[in-house]
Amino acid sequence: MGMTMSQKILAAHAGLDNVQPGQLIMANLDMVLGNDITTPVAINEFEKHDFDKVFHKDKISIVLDHFTPNKDIKAATQSKQCRCFAKHQEITNFYDVGQMGVEHSLLPEKGIVTCGDLVIGADSHTCTYGALGAFSTGVGSTDMAAGMATGRAWFKVPSAIKFNITGKLNKDISGKDVILHIISKIGVDGALYRSMEFVGDGIKNLSMDDRFCIANMAIEAGAKNGIFPVDEQTLAYVEGRGQRTPTIFEADADAIYDEVYDIDLSTIEHTVAFPHLPENGKTPSEWGDIAIDQVYIGSCTNGRYSDMEAAATILKGRHIAEGIRCIVIPATQQIYKDCIKNGLVDIFIDAGCIFSTPTCGPCLGGHMGILAEGERCVGTSNRNFVGRMGHPKSEVYLASPQVAAASAIAGKLATPESVKGE
Amino acid sequence: MGMTMSQKILAAHAGLDNVQPGQLIMANLDMVLGNDITTPVAINEFEKHDFDKVFHKDKISIVLDHFTPNKDIKAATQSKQCRCFAKHQEITNFYDVGQMGVEHSLLPEKGIVTCGDLVIGADSHTCTYGALGAFSTGVGSTDMAAGMATGRAWFKVPSAIKFNITGKLNKDISGKDVILHIISKIGVDGALYRSMEFVGDGIKNLSMDDRFCIANMAIEAGAKNGIFPVDEQTLAYVEGRGQRTPTIFEADADAIYDEVYDIDLSTIEHTVAFPHLPENGKTPSEWGDIAIDQVYIGSCTNGRYSDMEAAATILKGRHIAEGIRCIVIPATQQIYKDCIKNGLVDIFIDAGCIFSTPTCGPCLGGHMGILAEGERCVGTSNRNFVGRMGHPKSEVYLASPQVAAASAIAGKLATPESVKGE
Repeated sequence: MGMTMSQKILAAHAGLDNVQPGQLIMANLDMVLGNDITTPVAINEFEKHDFDKVFHKDKISIVLDHFTPNKDIKAATQSKQCRCFAKHQEITNFYDVGQMGVEHSLLPEKGIVTCGDLVIGADSHTCTYGALGAFSTGVGSTDMAAGMATGRAWFKVPSAIKFNITGKLNKDISGKDVILHIISKIGVDGALYRSMEFVGDGIKNLSMDDRFCIANMAIEAGAKNGIFPVDEQTLAYVEGRGQRTPTIFEADADAIYDEVYDIDLSTIEHTVAFPHLPENGKTPSEWGDIAIDQVYIGSCTNGRYSDMEAAATILKGRHIAEGIRCIVIPATQQIYKDCIKNGLVDIFIDAGCIFSTPTCGPCLGGHMGILAEGERCVGTSNRNFVGRMGHPKSEVYLASPQVAAASAIAGKLATPESVKGE
Repeated sequence: MGMTMSQKILAAHAGLDNVQPGQLIMANLDMVLGNDITTPVAINEFEKHDFDKVFHKDKISIVLDHFTPNKDIKAATQSKQCRCFAKHQEITNFYDVGQMGVEHSLLPEKGIVTCGDLVIGADSHTCTYGALGAFSTGVGSTDMAAGMATGRAWFKVPSAIKFNITGKLNKDISGKDVILHIISKIGVDGALYRSMEFVGDGIKNLSMDDRFCIANMAIEAGAKNGIFPVDEQTLAYVEGRGQRTPTIFEADADAIYDEVYDIDLSTIEHTVAFPHLPENGKTPSEWGDIAIDQVYIGSCTNGRYSDMEAAATILKGRHIAEGIRCIVIPATQQIYKDCIKNGLVDIFIDAGCIFSTPTCGPCLGGHMGILAEGERCVGTSNRNFVGRMGHPKSEVYLASPQVAAASAIAGKLATPESVKGE
């Protein structure tokens, strides 16, 4: 029986010729990731079991991005623990304040992950690297600890859903709309413990940033991972970045999929996930009049340069509505620099936004833009669960950077088209 | 009996020809200031006493700068309360996320305070505006509430200490060194409830930013206010900024001072206040080997453009020491923009620093750089009390931007001169 792309990566890393869905395997890891919240828990486990050294100092990444620069004493204590561990273990890919960025943007940017990798990360959005044709998935801190110690992890081989992508996105429609559309179609448990494999001749029309965004939110449909084939765009992206060499895996022609969905990109509209689930996607005709208090453009989902550029294009020469806060957070220092270089930061500030140093910030209710009771935020992040960005009685609307920027101008949920005439 | 400059401002605002030290007066206020921490308390008092409208919508400033962008739900709730009050009362000078900056930098920059003003603010560093020749002082939130309601406040007329300034600062020595030198000389209660009046022909050699820095820290010597005469530099600064018209007050020739100190600027050395009091100033020969973990360049004391420029000049083409975090926070959006325009942000990022959106941030242990147990920070802020920037067992060393930048490069307390050869 043929294997899916995900299954082939798992088989190769387990030293097996073939794997079957449901099979339990032990596989070798290319990268083990943690952040400032999850790594301390992993370090405690690591030390409790008297592990001495990590399995490979180049194959562990620790990124301080969630509550950094430290929001309080607890965060400072957690960061300090990570810092001491990384120093003691001589971790190559330790990223502290000043070098850092949001982990899932930073690792691809720095070439710390590449095509064909098997990656686990103590963060649910580790699935992002599927955009590079890697198998990557979120795990708990205990698995991170074991992974750091042994370089291995167990997996139950997932079955897969195939998404056959055709066509091309219309102007101002992005990967975010695609994934919100898909999650709305299959539900937040629609891909539970399965791979979401994106294939088809429409893939070439999706930028790498679109693919990162789509893979990033695979977990929001419950998927074990999301994955894209490696094409010329992928290879162009990884070229020159790599700490490691890309390996290309392809699904067998006779691979078995549980389900197949056809997605014609040209039919995707602006899609916004209403509170309080990412599956509550609505298109503009269903939005109604949603007055807002805050807009947040950033996160591991939409904090990349093209996201900043898309938002700036809409905000250029405009001003956000009175009474609205618009918080723009680039995902990495490199993106920050590129935004300066190309005049984007000036556009944001002139429009009345703030431009923060890279951090996960308000996405997870961390800091730098927490919501009060009754407040509504249009955010480009990945989760709109109850209280995700602050008070349990606040609301988050998940959207593309384009819709977020337009909404900041309108002071309510709005399409880019609707504010262009204003 | 002649009056000091401070006494003359108070007398004029009380409608009196003459006031004496110790006299209790009721005076008319030009500006009443609050921030996101103190204003909510004032609003509660205002409402508890059934006040309806504020005395003058143009003469109240509310700046959300301490825990903003909101660091948590409590901060979000406080900001929301300020926002609602400001909207309801139609407060002209309400500054929210995106328009804001650190209050004591923002108010002079926007021309909200000017020469000869009588200003109270529910923040201890309100004394900053003495640099403009205003009488300004910190009060509690209850006084802020009464001030907002009535436009008046009571004062006990302070006596004064005269600081006769002569000479000129040497290269890389700044206003920060001057005020740390003075506080070390007279102690943290050396000017208790008195005015610190700076006069003499050395004043012309102090930039406006030096004066803001010096006046800002008058409170750290216990002073009621610090004040500078209005000269050409002052008038040039306020020109074109003013929402209001400058008035020049001068001390009488026969004004009485409790004490007189002579300060020759040319003798001032780099001065760093060691933990845990601003009076613990030490010059380089006394520093010894102080390894550090963090550097913070910003705050209402040293977050102005010239501070950014001084730090960038030292950091240009260099990199901060391994294991050091360097957090740079411009005080206002305008300063942020100027730093971009002149390439300073690139210098900071290339040096391994982070450049944050304006906020008080870590200065008061707010957020964006809180210290863990045992950590040491060289900061350009104004207070190094126990636990000021985080854990009770952390330490803060108060310094100029020049010393802070040099220390980031050296990884320990260092002068700019000592790192230049490296």
